[in-house]
Amino acid sequence: MRIRLIVEYDGTDLCGWQRQANGPTVQQHLEDGLAAMLEHPVRITGASRTDAGVHARGQVAVFETTRTIPMHGVRRGLNARLPASVAVVGADAAPDDWHPRHSATGKRYRYTVLARQDRSPRWSRRAWHRPRPIDLAAMTTAAEALVGTHDFAAFRASDCDARTTVRTMREVAISLVEPGVVAIDVHGTAFLRNMVRIIAGTLLAAGEGRLNGAEVAEILASKDRTRAGQTAPAHGLELIEVLYEGGRPYHPRPGQAPEV
Amino acid sequence: MRIRLIVEYDGTDLCGWQRQANGPTVQQHLEDGLAAMLEHPVRITGASRTDAGVHARGQVAVFETTRTIPMHGVRRGLNARLPASVAVVGADAAPDDWHPRHSATGKRYRYTVLARQDRSPRWSRRAWHRPRPIDLAAMTTAAEALVGTHDFAAFRASDCDARTTVRTMREVAISLVEPGVVAIDVHGTAFLRNMVRIIAGTLLAAGEGRLNGAEVAEILASKDRTRAGQTAPAHGLELIEVLYEGGRPYHPRPGQAPEV
Repeated sequence: MRIRLIVEYDGTDLCGWQRQANGPTVQQHLEDGLAAMLEHPVRITGASRTDAGVHARGQVAVFETTRTIPMHGVRRGLNARLPASVAVVGADAAPDDWHPRHSATGKRYRYTVLARQDRSPRWSRRAWHRPRPIDLAAMTTAAEALVGTHDFAAFRASDCDARTTVRTMREVAISLVEPGVVAIDVHGTAFLRNMVRIIAGTLLAAGEGRLNGAEVAEILASKDRTRAGQTAPAHGLELIEVLYEGGRPYHPRPGQAPEV
Repeated sequence: MRIRLIVEYDGTDLCGWQRQANGPTVQQHLEDGLAAMLEHPVRITGASRTDAGVHARGQVAVFETTRTIPMHGVRRGLNARLPASVAVVGADAAPDDWHPRHSATGKRYRYTVLARQDRSPRWSRRAWHRPRPIDLAAMTTAAEALVGTHDFAAFRASDCDARTTVRTMREVAISLVEPGVVAIDVHGTAFLRNMVRIIAGTLLAAGEGRLNGAEVAEILASKDRTRAGQTAPAHGLELIEVLYEGGRPYHPRPGQAPEV
């Protein structure tokens, strides 16, 4: 039985998605919880290998089990075993050839910025604090330069080992969540390492008047990482959802569990 | 010099607004920070004595000082001394006869409910988890019964010592913040002890089918606390803003500090 999960987490105290030696990760918490529940070792694969500090409301993952268990049992059993920072919010049976990353047709991320002089107890774990005014119209103009199919070589981490750097951004949108809180919503087919955080750093440079829309287009054309903005800090980033071909909505619906 | 402050806090680890012996409070953090900064004892008065666990994005408070300091100095100096859970987000000079509670003409609170089966790492500190579907239309109908000027004796804590129990609710609105997350926005002239939390508990009973709109009107008319819903837990409540006659917007504006 192949089971896919929707996973929500607050990344503040986690060392990212992928299991590693130096601290707790989402993968490790899930694998340990499932192994305790199913009484056999479990290997789980995620759609996005989020970095330490990054949050998710709709990470998607898959695992296999020889046990037959009802889907609500997977969710309840796992949520009782997971720490408060991680929860499973959806579970269903997946086809044998389904893969959370290879089957994905797109992902949505949100990067949040607190643009005001004073720090915020409400946003400190979830937004990058920039203590100066920002120009949303300038950010929107700069964002438009990134929409479409481009070579994003200038927008990837130096240690990114992807073979091709061409990606398609379906949307790069700027909005005001509440006074002083700016969201950068990015929807693309796939992403390079640190790509959303470098886009956020570059668009902030535009919003703060250090770059303009034409310069963002030039940076993209240059394919030169050193010309793009800084890699924005991890804690402002959230994986919103992963999209699949003919996919059901991969996030919880109002008053209703997204269970089959 | 009489100075008013706008204060934001995450109430999770605080014992409420008012200074007390058994744990840290917002008043205590502010008074201690101001005393250290101004080098004289400071007494601060707040607009709302929020309970332990309640959050605020726009609490208003006032203090007096013999020192002459610029307003940005008050904010920067205090924010450097306050714990991460508390921040000052506005400061200006107040008239001598101005009082944060007596001068207030209204307050807005938001009560947030997570209405879905699975718990949420993102909302656990800020929303009351109700693991069943709720009917927003039924909540909205029930909420309408509370709007206007009424005797709210059925909606106050048993230890509330207010002399009169007549209050005016300008708005009681239900909305969906995101899938599964329901907000109850209450705007009134003034409130009785635990009033918003009892309103939230009663409207949830309507949303979950245990009461209807007509019954909520009957409970109000009965003036009987035992007939209203439970007092919803503190951590779902947030003080949004305090309103004043001819008042400036008492909350931070986009990319701009609300400073005079």
